[in-house]
Amino acid sequence: MNGNFLQASHRRWNPLRREWVLVSPHRTARPWQGQTETPSVSVVLSYDPTCYLCPGNVRAGGQRTPDYQATFTFTNDYAALQTDLAQDIYDFDNAGLLHAETERGICRVLCFDPRHDLTLATMSVSGIRRVVDLWIGQAAELSAIPWIQYVQIFENRGAMMGASNPHPHGQVWATEHIPNEPATEFATQLAYFTEHAEPLLAAYLGLEFQTNQRIVTSNDQWVALVPFWAVWPFEILLLPTGYASNFADLTEAQRDGLAAILQSVTALYNRVFDTPFPYSMGFHPAPCDGQRHPEWTLHAHFYPPLLRSATVRKFMVGFELLGSPQRDITPESAAATLRAALQEIE
Amino acid sequence: MNGNFLQASHRRWNPLRREWVLVSPHRTARPWQGQTETPSVSVVLSYDPTCYLCPGNVRAGGQRTPDYQATFTFTNDYAALQTDLAQDIYDFDNAGLLHAETERGICRVLCFDPRHDLTLATMSVSGIRRVVDLWIGQAAELSAIPWIQYVQIFENRGAMMGASNPHPHGQVWATEHIPNEPATEFATQLAYFTEHAEPLLAAYLGLEFQTNQRIVTSNDQWVALVPFWAVWPFEILLLPTGYASNFADLTEAQRDGLAAILQSVTALYNRVFDTPFPYSMGFHPAPCDGQRHPEWTLHAHFYPPLLRSATVRKFMVGFELLGSPQRDITPESAAATLRAALQEIE
Ligand SMILES: O=P(O)(O)O[C@H]1O[C@H](CO)[C@@H](O)[C@H](O)[C@H]1O
Ligand SMILES: O=P(O)(O)O[C@H]1O[C@H](CO)[C@@H](O)[C@H](O)[C@H]1O
Repeated sequence: MNGNFLQASHRRWNPLRREWVLVSPHRTARPWQGQTETPSVSVVLSYDPTCYLCPGNVRAGGQRTPDYQATFTFTNDYAALQTDLAQDIYDFDNAGLLHAETERGICRVLCFDPRHDLTLATMSVSGIRRVVDLWIGQAAELSAIPWIQYVQIFENRGAMMGASNPHPHGQVWATEHIPNEPATEFATQLAYFTEHAEPLLAAYLGLEFQTNQRIVTSNDQWVALVPFWAVWPFEILLLPTGYASNFADLTEAQRDGLAAILQSVTALYNRVFDTPFPYSMGFHPAPCDGQRHPEWTLHAHFYPPLLRSATVRKFMVGFELLGSPQRDITPESAAATLRAALQEIE
Repeated sequence: MNGNFLQASHRRWNPLRREWVLVSPHRTARPWQGQTETPSVSVVLSYDPTCYLCPGNVRAGGQRTPDYQATFTFTNDYAALQTDLAQDIYDFDNAGLLHAETERGICRVLCFDPRHDLTLATMSVSGIRRVVDLWIGQAAELSAIPWIQYVQIFENRGAMMGASNPHPHGQVWATEHIPNEPATEFATQLAYFTEHAEPLLAAYLGLEFQTNQRIVTSNDQWVALVPFWAVWPFEILLLPTGYASNFADLTEAQRDGLAAILQSVTALYNRVFDTPFPYSMGFHPAPCDGQRHPEWTLHAHFYPPLLRSATVRKFMVGFELLGSPQRDITPESAAATLRAALQEIE
């Protein structure tokens, strides 16, 4: 990008969500007197007798977590979605102003490792490979349920991102309808594919290789980059170099490569502010609606809140909630910071 | 609504943003072991020598805040938007995948009162009426600038919502383009008006009067309600009972009524958890594009993060960021809680 866009307020187009993000590169000099966060600290205990995700302990619902050796899955004791529901529609008026419908779904907790003190960043690549297999297995099992249309796998990492337990774990919510975000991505990817006969995110990745300003790290199978339209300060988009529209498409090599790049991304994040880096991350596979999805590229989003230090985060408030998302550092400078962090740990 | 929707997981349609929100009424029993917030405390000093918004003090940029008596406005010393910009467009490719353009704007800070220890909730109605006049004046002045298309007035209240100073103040960001949220509301309001020859939000308010389950408080000119499609636990939408598409349309009675209802809403919020209630709030007037906007209803959104107590907030993370927004308490039960809080202070 030319100098104007590295110093001047501008807006960037997100073609995957069809919306704008406001960028204020000149604003980083702003002093911060507002709320600071308690820095995350590393967990030291490999087994915590009070943790309901550690092997052998009893959960809130009264059930016992077994003595698992690798990964372990169970239905969330306080699931946000219910399975046994009488289908119902509420339409008070005929103009669509008061409209609701029951929504069935399945919410599961996915334990990544028996050890309480590990995270994706500190697990071995082979340990993460078992987590990849867990995700693939869950996606296959849940996608096969006829009334399920979408399988959303995600991880909330760190108290700042609402994780109520530091034990390495993620979640899967499988739903009767496609949620908002993948529904938007479906529309944009389909429109692009129809017009250009190429998946949107494959074309985008090609441009990123050409400009080479926002790629953080890559291996033969996957690329981690700060998207051109990133909202969160150190947001990362994980894209496959080859074709894959959902987990079932992944080859052995893509599975290994995914484990390796997840290890790199989470470890370099921890190096940026020398603190366990909080984030929400999750995968967007194609919907499981029984159709083929040549337009869709399986990808993962990482949304980390920290901006300047272990204790100063970006607030998505006022203008961001009421107007448009806004960021201070450019995606290009964020990518440079992340690349430098990676060099320091390699 | 019938019992199904008060107990079962369901989704509700937001016709103003054309998106869904997931509601999990059965989930409130969930125990919380995650991050708790430092409760907000009331400010006691009416003048703080270190506050750059208190009369007579020097700001970060070196300028002195005058000895103002009622309200005071100045250009943000660290404005997110710049005015003197050479217009530029970045289009790396022709398929819209890497697209950016410079964005001009004006960012101002709006001090509500010289007293450091007041908030909208504790100011007099006549004091708030002066703030309403300040907003009207800013909207008029900024709308008159030919290249400005939108005037976004908002307030971030409380450290949890990114406010870096407790002194009662808000902001205005006026921009060259219409931001995402009002752009979406423009499209939905225009489509509804074209089809039904009535503004969407006026029709919606009529239904709320009919069902009477979500109205929190009202006066002759304004209604405060928890919208059917609320995302934040105690979200409020403020609507005029009569016609107004922007600040300039407001009659004297509407201005007085707005001051009165703002006082009620902010004061009852503080009563809910007996703590200064953090929130982001802001107004959505029609765009200032030189057109008339019969489709548009001027309104304000209040987005408060607290969920269960002064220290337990709702986290918009994982599924919310990657899938759809999700809430636990129903809008109907939130409205009942807010009505009860109002009765306690009246
Ligand atoms: O300008 P302030 O009050 O320092 O900043 C606050 O409001 C802005 C507008 O919503 C946000 O961009 C910032 O993240 C927030 O901290
Ligand atoms: O299910 P958990 O981990 O208790 O809950 C966490 O993740 C959920 C899904 O993103 C959110 O709805 C909750 O607000 C958050 O605290």
